[in-house]
Amino acid sequence: MTASLIDGPHLIARLRELATIGATASGGVDRPAYSDDDVKAREIVRGWMRDVGMAVRIDTAGNTFARLEGSDPNLPPIVIGSHTDSVPDGGRYDGALGVLAALEVARTLGASAEALRHPLEVVDFQNEEGGIVGSKAVVGRLNAAELSRTAVSGFTLGEGIRRLGGDPDRLGDCVLAPGSRAAYVELHIEQGRFLERGAIDIGIVEGIVGIWYWEVTFEGVASHAGTTPMPDRHDALLAAARFIDAVHNVVTSIPGRHVGTVGRLNVHPGAPNVIPGRVVVTLELRDLVGANVERLYEAIELRAREIASNTGTSVQFRPTAHNVPAPTHARVRDAIEEAACGLGLSTMVLPSGAGHDAQQMTVVCPSGMLFVPSVDGLSHTPRELTKDQDCINGANVLLGAVRQLDDLD
Amino acid sequence: MTASLIDGPHLIARLRELATIGATASGGVDRPAYSDDDVKAREIVRGWMRDVGMAVRIDTAGNTFARLEGSDPNLPPIVIGSHTDSVPDGGRYDGALGVLAALEVARTLGASAEALRHPLEVVDFQNEEGGIVGSKAVVGRLNAAELSRTAVSGFTLGEGIRRLGGDPDRLGDCVLAPGSRAAYVELHIEQGRFLERGAIDIGIVEGIVGIWYWEVTFEGVASHAGTTPMPDRHDALLAAARFIDAVHNVVTSIPGRHVGTVGRLNVHPGAPNVIPGRVVVTLELRDLVGANVERLYEAIELRAREIASNTGTSVQFRPTAHNVPAPTHARVRDAIEEAACGLGLSTMVLPSGAGHDAQQMTVVCPSGMLFVPSVDGLSHTPRELTKDQDCINGANVLLGAVRQLDDLD
Repeated sequence: MTASLIDGPHLIARLRELATIGATASGGVDRPAYSDDDVKAREIVRGWMRDVGMAVRIDTAGNTFARLEGSDPNLPPIVIGSHTDSVPDGGRYDGALGVLAALEVARTLGASAEALRHPLEVVDFQNEEGGIVGSKAVVGRLNAAELSRTAVSGFTLGEGIRRLGGDPDRLGDCVLAPGSRAAYVELHIEQGRFLERGAIDIGIVEGIVGIWYWEVTFEGVASHAGTTPMPDRHDALLAAARFIDAVHNVVTSIPGRHVGTVGRLNVHPGAPNVIPGRVVVTLELRDLVGANVERLYEAIELRAREIASNTGTSVQFRPTAHNVPAPTHARVRDAIEEAACGLGLSTMVLPSGAGHDAQQMTVVCPSGMLFVPSVDGLSHTPRELTKDQDCINGANVLLGAVRQLDDLD
Repeated sequence: MTASLIDGPHLIARLRELATIGATASGGVDRPAYSDDDVKAREIVRGWMRDVGMAVRIDTAGNTFARLEGSDPNLPPIVIGSHTDSVPDGGRYDGALGVLAALEVARTLGASAEALRHPLEVVDFQNEEGGIVGSKAVVGRLNAAELSRTAVSGFTLGEGIRRLGGDPDRLGDCVLAPGSRAAYVELHIEQGRFLERGAIDIGIVEGIVGIWYWEVTFEGVASHAGTTPMPDRHDALLAAARFIDAVHNVVTSIPGRHVGTVGRLNVHPGAPNVIPGRVVVTLELRDLVGANVERLYEAIELRAREIASNTGTSVQFRPTAHNVPAPTHARVRDAIEEAACGLGLSTMVLPSGAGHDAQQMTVVCPSGMLFVPSVDGLSHTPRELTKDQDCINGANVLLGAVRQLDDLD
């Protein structure tokens, strides 16, 4: 028999419809975790899940799970999905495509005579963009102290979980035991240019890079910009500026796919006529190999101390978070490869430079990801775009991979 | 006859008393313009003015003027004073010393048999720290659009003027015609280190530097920090960082007392995991000579364009404000010099790197300033300190300069 495909135009229509929630003037979406639009988008997705006959639950972490029964009640579920929250002023595809494609897979299976042996679960993880919070919770890695952290939307994680229908006092209840799921597969946009440059249809993710975060503080002396001669200054912003240049120079001096970024910078007191006395910047380094990051960090820290010494300031590094590198499972990679192959689609194996919920799910079950091309590699911006046919291809490969995994026990 | 001196301990006691209004735990004062404590401090000062028999008025801009009559009713007044508002979390001396020393001069003259020929006016200008607003108004330079600008205290300038007893609808009434005053002399703390380093008692200000402000915007492309390889980035923060270093290098490459400062920097979107797409920084340059600033600006702009080109970003300069350099009047400088000399105090001539109300008053009449030493050059901080004897010296020189100016026609 020829296996059925997903309904392409229906998937595209749903992507457009979901993008109206939190739509921005620039054509993107603004649905930071726990915002009104985040809550609303999740409700709409749950409605669509119920429409295809799935049993919907919200776990205590505020994640949405929808279940379609399989033919063998003794088998653990195969899980597919992603997240529907976005970065502030983000794009329409990051996360949303993975959830809606998974829903389309369930819809296709539910509507056909074909039944999987395993139950199928579609998941919409909460607050992926703010630190893969929902998937961290289901693997028991969400630290209690994190609940009081304030998300971009202004709510703390604890408040946000309540807003989504979860219960931060009972987070233990949402933990998925290792082995309790058969597999996890996540479709996502690449957010990079490797597929586009190679004219490749489907990316098979070999692993998700580790991310190391620091907060770096330069302390100088705030003083009057008009009355403090240049040689007397202890300008924390001058030190931070040289640091940012040094991060770039160190990171680009060593060949490889690792990256280093300073994305946030706060100046105190931050007035045009006051020499900055304190500047706090973020530093993040990413690579599949931890030892490479250690090497980069050592070189950066050395340069920072030199810069502080040359500018009459002091510098302090504080590690703030750390995601370990997460290799994907060969069984899932093979299932994606076979599914793509069966559809005549080209593939390449590549790392994920971005963090994803899949990296947490590797703890629960064999997990993997497939990527579809991002136009110009852009994401986390309203200009984020994945062509309709690539979205449809991704959903069909996801469906095929689920069938492959269903055949294994 | 030996001319009387001011009552030193009384001046010091008054400085302490005024510093209790808006006193901060760290020993400074927090009296931003239009705040409750700013309003209260000005009321107290007006009470002290009335105590010495002065006629007090609040002009339509919210400035306080107190008048002591002279022996010749046909002569225009000599004006002395400064301001009692402070920067947020500022010090006890910036502004307050000039007003209280002027009051002490009036008290000394009022209490003695000695009468000036000219009337004497003591002024407490409003909102000096937020852009020398009160003195701008009395020279007719306060733009109507500025009234809707919000001050640090949260009130607009228009609301603030009403809070101080002025009337923003009748600002024309407060304008002092050129020639309507005989002279203006302002005592202020140096806020720098030239006097302290030279062990000099009194600074004679040769002029108040001009200040040129720009807003400089670097535009790159915001993108995902994990998925955008280093060579593909258009990092606006990297460009801004190199710009800040370049400003420092250009400004310090040319000898002179000019200064250049980047005091504020805003990153968009400003998340640790997003490559910054837009960064806006402030640039200010100060010097007594406009042509020097033009030369610095040209060199900085050239470097900025090179940096933009090397980082795949664009750069735009927008001039936001400009205070012309204000040379002081030889007649006032001479009066200060002679008064200091008569008291056996050492002097040096120096520019003022900070803006002051005196720079506006140069439009109305011959104007000048004298400085007293700041310990460690600090100001705009609770650690701001001028020694008691230096405060008293300054007040006595102010008194002597007023007498000198009174003797001239």
